[in-house]
Amino acid sequence: MSTDPITVIGIDPGLTRCGVAIVAGPVSRPRVVHAECVTTDADLPLEQRLLAVHERLRAVIAAHRPAQVAVERVLFSANTRSAMATGQAAGIAMLAGAQSGLEVTSYSPTDVKLAVAGNGGADKAAVGRMVAAQLGLSEVPRPADVADAIAIALTHLART
Amino acid sequence: MSTDPITVIGIDPGLTRCGVAIVAGPVSRPRVVHAECVTTDADLPLEQRLLAVHERLRAVIAAHRPAQVAVERVLFSANTRSAMATGQAAGIAMLAGAQSGLEVTSYSPTDVKLAVAGNGGADKAAVGRMVAAQLGLSEVPRPADVADAIAIALTHLART
Repeated sequence: MSTDPITVIGIDPGLTRCGVAIVAGPVSRPRVVHAECVTTDADLPLEQRLLAVHERLRAVIAAHRPAQVAVERVLFSANTRSAMATGQAAGIAMLAGAQSGLEVTSYSPTDVKLAVAGNGGADKAAVGRMVAAQLGLSEVPRPADVADAIAIALTHLART
Repeated sequence: MSTDPITVIGIDPGLTRCGVAIVAGPVSRPRVVHAECVTTDADLPLEQRLLAVHERLRAVIAAHRPAQVAVERVLFSANTRSAMATGQAAGIAMLAGAQSGLEVTSYSPTDVKLAVAGNGGADKAAVGRMVAAQLGLSEVPRPADVADAIAIALTHLART
């Protein structure tokens, strides 16, 4: 087993807001190398929004060269139209990883809560606090999409 | 209004089977320039399947240079997992169009049935027969995914 600190890109998929975080291991002392929230204008045609997310993810991957990709799995909600758009953003994220030859792993929201907060039913605030604690930060990273992307990357580091 | 025959790529999205058809107008005398069913192995990781569909769609668009893209909109079914994968394939198809600077239009299954068979409740066989009739073919194009992709392109020609 390699002891090299692995670098992971965590992606909280979305079209309106897509959280992206580059986190370097080891899991015992993780470090956020880059984090951003990619946004697209809801007035744009769907294909233009998908294109914008794709181009930004490709650029972040090219700039930071993570070794692996972790994406939050999209579950169905009451709002199926919104769930489909979010699912398509997740598909675009997986594609961007595959185009760079990277392995892609999906985690459910429960996987992430369990790995980061030790409780599959943890609320957003608890996950945020645990993310801050693991990173040695005095405040929860903002916006929430970025904290979620970091949590997804931390989940992947903890699992590998 | 231009009288040049427009060329449309119709896409019936899917990961296991994705129907693709290049159809040249005018709608009064449509002609299928190219048609194929892109398939991916269900044993491959999801991101590899999305990549394979994306690469093939990009290649078909590059080879045939359609002016517009028509994609069937994915609705939710009892099998939400399968609907999500199909929806992600639709997202990849829209992305491929946008990457070539093309306008992308989505049509619901009802739109397609109404435009091709004159009846939003038409069954698959009726749609196939009407596709064959519009193309002056003695047989329904096969496989069904290809007939569906042609129907989507014909719907777009009829609407524009």
